[in-house]
Amino acid sequence: MAPRKDAVSKKTVAKIEKLAEGVLKAVAGGKNPSLDIPVRSLANVKWSDKRRLVELGSQKQKRYFFNVSMAKKFMQTFLVSEACKELIDSGKTTSIRDLYYVTKHTIGDTKQNTFEEQDESDPIIEDLEVTVDALREELHLFAARKGSMVGPITIVDTGDTIDLRRMGSGGWAVPSIVEENIITFKKHEAKYVLLIEKDAVWTRFNEDKFWKRNSCIIVQGGGQPPRGVRRLVQRLHSELKLPVYVLVDNDPWGFYIYSVMKQGSINLAYESMRMAVPDARFVGLSSFDKDKYQLPGNVSIKMDDGDNNRAKQMLAYPWFRHAKWQKEIQEMVRSGLKFELEALSRRGISFITEEYVPKKLKDKDWLE
Amino acid sequence: MAPRKDAVSKKTVAKIEKLAEGVLKAVAGGKNPSLDIPVRSLANVKWSDKRRLVELGSQKQKRYFFNVSMAKKFMQTFLVSEACKELIDSGKTTSIRDLYYVTKHTIGDTKQNTFEEQDESDPIIEDLEVTVDALREELHLFAARKGSMVGPITIVDTGDTIDLRRMGSGGWAVPSIVEENIITFKKHEAKYVLLIEKDAVWTRFNEDKFWKRNSCIIVQGGGQPPRGVRRLVQRLHSELKLPVYVLVDNDPWGFYIYSVMKQGSINLAYESMRMAVPDARFVGLSSFDKDKYQLPGNVSIKMDDGDNNRAKQMLAYPWFRHAKWQKEIQEMVRSGLKFELEALSRRGISFITEEYVPKKLKDKDWLE
Repeated sequence: MAPRKDAVSKKTVAKIEKLAEGVLKAVAGGKNPSLDIPVRSLANVKWSDKRRLVELGSQKQKRYFFNVSMAKKFMQTFLVSEACKELIDSGKTTSIRDLYYVTKHTIGDTKQNTFEEQDESDPIIEDLEVTVDALREELHLFAARKGSMVGPITIVDTGDTIDLRRMGSGGWAVPSIVEENIITFKKHEAKYVLLIEKDAVWTRFNEDKFWKRNSCIIVQGGGQPPRGVRRLVQRLHSELKLPVYVLVDNDPWGFYIYSVMKQGSINLAYESMRMAVPDARFVGLSSFDKDKYQLPGNVSIKMDDGDNNRAKQMLAYPWFRHAKWQKEIQEMVRSGLKFELEALSRRGISFITEEYVPKKLKDKDWLE
Repeated sequence: MAPRKDAVSKKTVAKIEKLAEGVLKAVAGGKNPSLDIPVRSLANVKWSDKRRLVELGSQKQKRYFFNVSMAKKFMQTFLVSEACKELIDSGKTTSIRDLYYVTKHTIGDTKQNTFEEQDESDPIIEDLEVTVDALREELHLFAARKGSMVGPITIVDTGDTIDLRRMGSGGWAVPSIVEENIITFKKHEAKYVLLIEKDAVWTRFNEDKFWKRNSCIIVQGGGQPPRGVRRLVQRLHSELKLPVYVLVDNDPWGFYIYSVMKQGSINLAYESMRMAVPDARFVGLSSFDKDKYQLPGNVSIKMDDGDNNRAKQMLAYPWFRHAKWQKEIQEMVRSGLKFELEALSRRGISFITEEYVPKKLKDKDWLE
């Protein structure tokens, strides 16, 4: 017996069915069936000043069935659509690697495979996402997962009520799919969300019970946060109206992690609306913190050519054009130095939880 | 006020103090202070047939204070010892990256730093571990963490009672330090532990509630399991007498993950006793499963030169010398093919949880 579908799943299935019906109608009318697929190339990505997001533009391309160069991709799009519909119908989720295997067949008596490698099926998934306007999580596909979370909030995860105030040193492991049909928020006393780049630093915040003393949710994504963490932070912000603060290393990679959480990324521009938090605030590390917090010179690390080029590129990004950000990045380029969150431990291992972050928040010493 | 120390911490501090007292005694007696440090090089690593573990031999080297080439390392050893003792005294833990920053100083008016890079402090930590015979976790140092766990067991993690039967889709995030002073086991109905290589496959097992239907604990470490996961599995095995089964890809990397969980690794031979489970069983994927479970040819992946060389090396390892393992690895080399756990999804996405693993366990079709 197929499980009863929730509202999210019903909506997604309807979108896939609509796609298929359009094609069937064209066939019945004697026309060449086609799909209108939004273009995902850089040329169709733009910065929206109004929404403060990296967004996909309005360009579309037609994918025809009766076209030698498009027929295979057309077939692949429906293979993937069908597999996703079956996943949703059976109430199961799976990985994009798994989907590749599930949809890989040798066609008839030929030696032709539907897909040769996963790098053929992944772009088809992205095509489907933008065409039917559904996140891959809504198509019941999950990505690699990393990250953990604790804080003064109770959640329900697939029927289990979980008190994130009582998760010990480990925390709750953030899954990849965190849509409303999987995760809901219950009672909470949180005043904000603190997204921490590094798991080791998160462990310091958890061990020092920072989240309890400061009534906040702390979450880490093991470097660049995976989709599950970003989407969950976005939901905590939009549904519970919690401000989001981002704590990263003082290097171009840290700034990039912040900018993806805040504006979305160029690669996944079509998802910015539901993955990004334009109001997110950067609480450090700033290039000016070395002086402000009296750190010795020997904790700095010299930037390499890659770092320098990356920092200079960032100066040109529209989302870093605010005078404060320009000053920040220029100082990094000028000094040629970067430094890590752990460098604050020269002032004591709990300096970061007891003085650095509390002072940043109290003085509103953040960048936006 | 310093927190009251638990038994584990008291023992570790006593070991560090004994080390320091030995040096002080030498100084008082007008002798050149020295440390006896077990040698961690490959030449001092051996396979123990009796304990079925990769172990450190008995070679030691003397590190003298009054010796131009050893004085700096001697000083570094005590800097690290002192920092660890302070961590234990204050009831805090930290990362090895953090410890590097904490112990990095510029000496007096010189331009000489105690440590230039972390690759200088890490080996000193390992020296200290083997010299005082304490895992780095007992020195209150943690490593990077990955991995999640669910199953029919209740644990206590730093005072919080956590029911791993009610952890939703996310699971409990396994911390890096899982010693008895942090994690204890309470009521459980588990019959065994299943260690799964891949987080995506673990998610399948969790979603299908495999652990509930089969009364087992499922844990994943995101590829090669980090120290926390290995130590926790070892504790579940030794304290609760639970058999351990390992589920990995059919490739040399998968076999390696299995062998590290079972025998320990050459690099960390001095920890095998407390990190490895010599009774662990390999439940697949086996090179013979392609035929046994009727998988189509197109899910195999051709091995590259690196894979082939790695597989041939493994044939020579004493811990793979059993006839069954020789046959297994020879088949991999002969076919030149590897395949992933996800390939089983060609038989249906829940084939692995509903048929493959249950049949392997029922038929006792494992390798040891």
